[in-house]
Amino acid sequence: VNCCPLAEGTGEQAYTCRVKKDGAKRRKQRPNNSEGAVIRKIEVAARSLGEKANKGSGMRLGIGDDAALWHPRTGFETVLTSDWFLEGTHFLRNSHAPDSVGWKCLARAISDIAAMGGEPRCFLLSLGLPEDCTKEWLNRFLRGLCRASSKLGCVLAGGDTTRSGTILINISVVGEVKQGCARLRSTARAGDRIFVSGRLGEAELGWRALQGGEKASEARPVLLLHKHLYPEPRIELGRWLAQSRTATAMMDLSDGLSSDLARMCEASGTGARIYSNRLPLPDGVFSTKFSEVDRRTAAIHGGDDYELLFCVAKANASKIPRKSHGVALAEIGEVTNKRGVFLIENSGESHPLRSGGWDPFKK
Amino acid sequence: VNCCPLAEGTGEQAYTCRVKKDGAKRRKQRPNNSEGAVIRKIEVAARSLGEKANKGSGMRLGIGDDAALWHPRTGFETVLTSDWFLEGTHFLRNSHAPDSVGWKCLARAISDIAAMGGEPRCFLLSLGLPEDCTKEWLNRFLRGLCRASSKLGCVLAGGDTTRSGTILINISVVGEVKQGCARLRSTARAGDRIFVSGRLGEAELGWRALQGGEKASEARPVLLLHKHLYPEPRIELGRWLAQSRTATAMMDLSDGLSSDLARMCEASGTGARIYSNRLPLPDGVFSTKFSEVDRRTAAIHGGDDYELLFCVAKANASKIPRKSHGVALAEIGEVTNKRGVFLIENSGESHPLRSGGWDPFKK
Repeated sequence: VNCCPLAEGTGEQAYTCRVKKDGAKRRKQRPNNSEGAVIRKIEVAARSLGEKANKGSGMRLGIGDDAALWHPRTGFETVLTSDWFLEGTHFLRNSHAPDSVGWKCLARAISDIAAMGGEPRCFLLSLGLPEDCTKEWLNRFLRGLCRASSKLGCVLAGGDTTRSGTILINISVVGEVKQGCARLRSTARAGDRIFVSGRLGEAELGWRALQGGEKASEARPVLLLHKHLYPEPRIELGRWLAQSRTATAMMDLSDGLSSDLARMCEASGTGARIYSNRLPLPDGVFSTKFSEVDRRTAAIHGGDDYELLFCVAKANASKIPRKSHGVALAEIGEVTNKRGVFLIENSGESHPLRSGGWDPFKK
Repeated sequence: VNCCPLAEGTGEQAYTCRVKKDGAKRRKQRPNNSEGAVIRKIEVAARSLGEKANKGSGMRLGIGDDAALWHPRTGFETVLTSDWFLEGTHFLRNSHAPDSVGWKCLARAISDIAAMGGEPRCFLLSLGLPEDCTKEWLNRFLRGLCRASSKLGCVLAGGDTTRSGTILINISVVGEVKQGCARLRSTARAGDRIFVSGRLGEAELGWRALQGGEKASEARPVLLLHKHLYPEPRIELGRWLAQSRTATAMMDLSDGLSSDLARMCEASGTGARIYSNRLPLPDGVFSTKFSEVDRRTAAIHGGDDYELLFCVAKANASKIPRKSHGVALAEIGEVTNKRGVFLIENSGESHPLRSGGWDPFKK
C-alpha cells in the first residue's frame, strides 16, 4: 500500500543497503528497486576508494545508517559548508561531462574549507536525479566525484537520494582547522597587502571556449578548459597561510575578484585599491585565443577560479614567496581605510570597481 | 560585466552579509540586490534566536564567511546527516503552510540524529527559491524553521542560496553522541524484542485529512494534522536508549514500519515477527474520522511519523516503561533468525509483510 507517496520519506534513510563482509551474497537478496540500484552504485564507488582513505578521515560509520559517525580530532575546530550545484544554474547536462560535474561539485565545496585554512575530512552527497540519469550519467559522475574525493582527501560519509526533473546536487563538507588558526574574511586591516593565488579568469575563458565548441575528453584533457571543468581548491596553501598566521584575512575567489574583494572589504569595514598591471592574467594558450582586454576583464570579473584571496600585514608582505605549494602568488594591491574598491589603471588613474559577480535572484 | 552567469558561483559564499555591531548602519551601504535581501532575512531569523541558543551549541562562527566554525565536545562523536525536502516531492506549495515546511524540513533531518542516539547541534540550510517565494513565503518559512531550531536545540550555522524554478530545500544536521553510545540499525539480534514510540500512522492519516480539505492555521493547530505538519523527533528518548545502552539497535520510522523494519532486518541479517494487535494505532480524533482498517493500514505502511523503532534484549524488555520522555512505548514483536518480516494477525495466522514504502525512482 502506498497511500501517501508525497508525505512519505523519499530517501532520508537513503544508502540503507549497508555493505557487509558477505556483501556479494547479501545483495542478491535485496529487493530489486531502482533507488536501491542508485544507492548501490554510490556505495560501490565509495568502497572503490579503499579503506585506506577512510582511515585518516576519522570516519566511524559511513553510508548505510540513519546518519554517519565521524570522530573529530582533539585540538581542532570543525569547518562546515554546503554548496548547491544545479543543472541549468551551475552546469549544463549537454555541455559539461558528468565526470567534470562529479569532480567540480566536490572541489568547489572544498574550496570553502580551504578558504578558512581548513582541511577537508568527509562530505555528504545529496543527489536528485531524473530517471534517465541513473545509469551511464551516474556512473561517469561518480567516477569524477571519486577522483576528487581521493585526490582532495575527503571521503563520502552519506547523504540522500531522490528523483527529480533536473539534476540536483548538494554537497556538505566537513573539514578541520587547528584551534584558533581559522582565517576569516572579516579581519582585513587598512595597510594590509592583498594577494591572490594562481592566474585569474582562466575558468571564465574556459567556459567561453566550451561555449565556442572547444571539446574536452577524459582521455585528452584540454588546457583551455581545465580550470573551468576541474578546478583545484588550494588546500595546502590555505592551511599554510592559516597555521603560520601569515594571512590576516582570507576567502576563496568563486564569484570573481570584483565581487569577492568587495565582500571581504564589506565584512572587514575597509576599502581596497588594486593595480590593473599587477593582476595575474591568463597566459600561454589563453594568450593565443583571447585578447588582453578579454583576459583582463575575465581576471577582474570572471568567477569559478577557486583561487585564494588573502591579506598580509605590510611588514610581512615581502616574505611571501612568488610561488608556494605549487601555485604562483601575486601581490595585487592594498587594503585602505576609505570605503569602496578602486582599480588603478596603468595610466595611474583610479576608478571605482563595480562588482561584476552574478546574483542568482537578479533578473 | 557578467560574462558567465552559469559558471559563476551562485551563492557558495552565500550569507556573506555578516552582521556587525553597527549592523543597522552598515546594511544601508550594502548593494541592494535581492540575493542579499534573502540572506539578510535568514540572518535576522538566525539572530532572533538569540545568543543564548548559540552558546551551548559550540558555534564559533556562523553565517557570514566561506564556512562555519564549530567546536566539537571532547568525548563525543559527530553525527552527520543530509535530507532533501523538495516542493512536489515532499510538500506541495498550495497544501502545506510555509511555516510547516520550515518546521518539518529541520525536524525530519534531526530525526536521523535522534535515531542514532545523538543530539542535534547545528545545521546548514541550502535553499533554492523561485523569485515569488523570496518575500512572504520566505518570512513564514523562516518562522517555522526558527521555532524548530529553538525548540529542538539546533542552531543555523550557514548554508547556500540560489534561485530555482521550484522550492528546493536541503538540510544538513551536525549532532553529537557520547563516544561508543551511538545505536545502529544493523545490530539487532534474534530474540530481541521490537518496540516503537508513539502512535503509528497519524502522519499518514493527517496527510489524507489535509487532502480531504481539513484546514490548519498557525493560530488553531488541528490535532488531526499536527503529526503530518509538525512532527517531533524523539531526541530525549533516543539519547536515553543510547546512553543507557538499552536499545540493541535503533532507527527512525520515516518511510513506514513495513519498509523500515525490513531495512533494519536486512542490515542486521535477521528477520522479524510483529503482532497486528500490538500496533499502537491512531486513536482519539482519528477513530472518529477513520475506520480501524484504515488506521491499521496507516500504522503498518504509512510514512512520516518520525517515531523510533528499536530493539531490546529479551532479558531487558520488561524494564521498558509504558511511557518515557513524554511518549508511549509499545512492544510490537520480536527479532527472528528466519529472514523476512511477518505479520501475525489476530487469528494467529502469519503472513509475510510486504514493504509498503515508497521508492522515488520507481514509476
